[in-house]
Amino acid sequence: METTFAQPLPDGSATSPHGFRAAAVAAGIKPSGRPDLVLVVSDLDCAAAGVFTRNRVAAAPVLLDRETLAAGRAALRGVIINAGNANACTGTPGLTDAREMQRLAAEAVGARPEQFLVMSTGVIGVPLPMARVRAGVAAAAARLSAADGPAAAEAIMTTDTRPKRAAVEVELTGGRVRIGGMAKGAGMIHPDMATLLGLLTTDAAITPDDLDALLHGAVAGSFNAISIDGDTSTNDTVLLLANGAAGVALSDADSRARFAAALTDLCTQLAQMIVRDGEGATRFVTLRVTGAASAADARRVADAIATSPLVKTAFAGGDPNWGRILAATGRSGAKVDPERLALWVGAPGAEPLQLVRAGTPTGFREAGAAAVFALPEFTAHVDLGLGDGEATLWTTDLTHDYVTINADYRT
Amino acid sequence: METTFAQPLPDGSATSPHGFRAAAVAAGIKPSGRPDLVLVVSDLDCAAAGVFTRNRVAAAPVLLDRETLAAGRAALRGVIINAGNANACTGTPGLTDAREMQRLAAEAVGARPEQFLVMSTGVIGVPLPMARVRAGVAAAAARLSAADGPAAAEAIMTTDTRPKRAAVEVELTGGRVRIGGMAKGAGMIHPDMATLLGLLTTDAAITPDDLDALLHGAVAGSFNAISIDGDTSTNDTVLLLANGAAGVALSDADSRARFAAALTDLCTQLAQMIVRDGEGATRFVTLRVTGAASAADARRVADAIATSPLVKTAFAGGDPNWGRILAATGRSGAKVDPERLALWVGAPGAEPLQLVRAGTPTGFREAGAAAVFALPEFTAHVDLGLGDGEATLWTTDLTHDYVTINADYRT
Repeated sequence: METTFAQPLPDGSATSPHGFRAAAVAAGIKPSGRPDLVLVVSDLDCAAAGVFTRNRVAAAPVLLDRETLAAGRAALRGVIINAGNANACTGTPGLTDAREMQRLAAEAVGARPEQFLVMSTGVIGVPLPMARVRAGVAAAAARLSAADGPAAAEAIMTTDTRPKRAAVEVELTGGRVRIGGMAKGAGMIHPDMATLLGLLTTDAAITPDDLDALLHGAVAGSFNAISIDGDTSTNDTVLLLANGAAGVALSDADSRARFAAALTDLCTQLAQMIVRDGEGATRFVTLRVTGAASAADARRVADAIATSPLVKTAFAGGDPNWGRILAATGRSGAKVDPERLALWVGAPGAEPLQLVRAGTPTGFREAGAAAVFALPEFTAHVDLGLGDGEATLWTTDLTHDYVTINADYRT
Repeated sequence: METTFAQPLPDGSATSPHGFRAAAVAAGIKPSGRPDLVLVVSDLDCAAAGVFTRNRVAAAPVLLDRETLAAGRAALRGVIINAGNANACTGTPGLTDAREMQRLAAEAVGARPEQFLVMSTGVIGVPLPMARVRAGVAAAAARLSAADGPAAAEAIMTTDTRPKRAAVEVELTGGRVRIGGMAKGAGMIHPDMATLLGLLTTDAAITPDDLDALLHGAVAGSFNAISIDGDTSTNDTVLLLANGAAGVALSDADSRARFAAALTDLCTQLAQMIVRDGEGATRFVTLRVTGAASAADARRVADAIATSPLVKTAFAGGDPNWGRILAATGRSGAKVDPERLALWVGAPGAEPLQLVRAGTPTGFREAGAAAVFALPEFTAHVDLGLGDGEATLWTTDLTHDYVTINADYRT
């Protein structure tokens, strides 16, 4: 973000904002023996907001968090997260386990159960090893530290190869506040995420209603542009906690706008980190759709392109197979007039190369198109020539490594 | 099909019905130099029916065939087909080329242009090499033969590894008629077919309106259960020609029912051949969805499972990752109550193994489930427990070979 009011913080994480501590321990839930259980705790009561999967088969922690936030959003104390087991498709016993996780975490830090939220990611349909969770919570609670934000970001990884975390300091009327966060989620992200989890924290003082609006706004243009909402896993969750430790509220419109911009930017950074670390991904592709009859239509087109195995394998091969992009556009369900279609591809920051005008090839040089598709990062821009609807979506290619990772994830 | 009124014909093809001849030549459209241009011609005028892609970006031959059939469906004489070039996203010049193909084929056999239909499959967005097409049509017309049905089925292949063809003889009131056909289409089939083409022929005497109803009915439970309708390529087309050479009409309800059953069965055979030959496919999976709130909901669930990269890679790995099947069910958009979900898997003809009851694992033996998922052919059956909606769909796995084939199809 090019602003003067927001500065990235070095080594930023969910504990960069004041008053947050974290701990990560190896509880033995991941078969690898790597750290897999995390506590993030605020010293002060927090306002809290959440965005959750729309999958009808929602995991136990999602059901519990919705219930917890519905009962009260003004006095949360923290979040417990485990990786290695999603606690999904586990029925009533799974919900009982999620409640016990919530209670254990709360008791370990002197809070009430309804002050904790729960997130889980990992294999579906296997009961949580609760004895290990119990021991893990006790161990984690004993070593909470403001320095453990980075360790927490590592512990929530599943097929991720890199932790995703960042933080920023924002100048508001009345003083500076910090926003930090971490995320995980490798999968091909869309449509079948290996679960997207995001935890955002801030030391600004924000009311629960404001926080909810800010989170939904930030997610719409960030995590939502890689997935979430409908086409999602059983566990996808993004949470935002605001503890007010900075003693600075969003006291005027300018402060609110700055905070919203910084939060959206932080979420965008984390979302793009997830795409760049997509399972087996070798390309980072920005899909831009303009000229659609509506914003929903633009999103339909972007989704159809981003989920097309033929498009994604062409990306993997560096093959300028633009016909597959138009074919996906045509089957998207959006209003399309083939004779108005235009397509450009381009390297970041460079003049785009127009491949299609009025639905037919422009006579571009094949070598020029091949050079763009061979880049690790490029943009594909479809214009439908029908209206003002626009959408931007980030996606990856579909590679041999994706198949290898997912053909054998469980066993 | 277990019937006494229909018998498969050995070496069956589109020229098995009386009065049809075919020719296949290497016109030089495929870079491989293999046969790529086909004529199928009837000695007598035919009634004709067609089912076409719903992709908004329909290829020139699809636009032309729709126009041709709209102008007259009672006196067709044949079909010209090329592989190696889809004549899609080629604009007005592409439509001009398709019209020339139509005219060339008709003139070469002494028919009028409006008596021919055109099908194309192959790379998108490249102009047809018309000089080669012209020479190819002349060569093909000179060698039309009732023996060349099998050669025609080979020539329309693209990434297919095996030709798909079959024929059947049906006993009707008044005598026997034959139905023959061929198809191509490898892709992962759904949602991104590498183009499905089907050509069906019969020597029964059938009115155009009857033929249209029979074809739509047959396609619904066969080619449509692997794809077509909406989620399709730019070129997907299934045609049916009836030339009456057998001198037998569908004179009573019983005859009509027999013909409809035999036609559906033939289409099902061809459709399943396509799935079994799916690009890189190592599994043939029958997805059965029951208990949905509606048939449309059942289809939504089947589609979501069949298009899930996570499900398909689990199939490839022989991994009994049933959680991914339920996750896809949950995000299908269909009405789902997680606590009513049931899932069975089974080998063909064997007692199915129930993995999930009331949304949670049944406590099945992991080794038993793994044994089913390791089979080259098995059924997965999801019951939603909500209503009477049902759907069956055939699909494949997503393998390394699929990525290899499609990362480098064009170049």
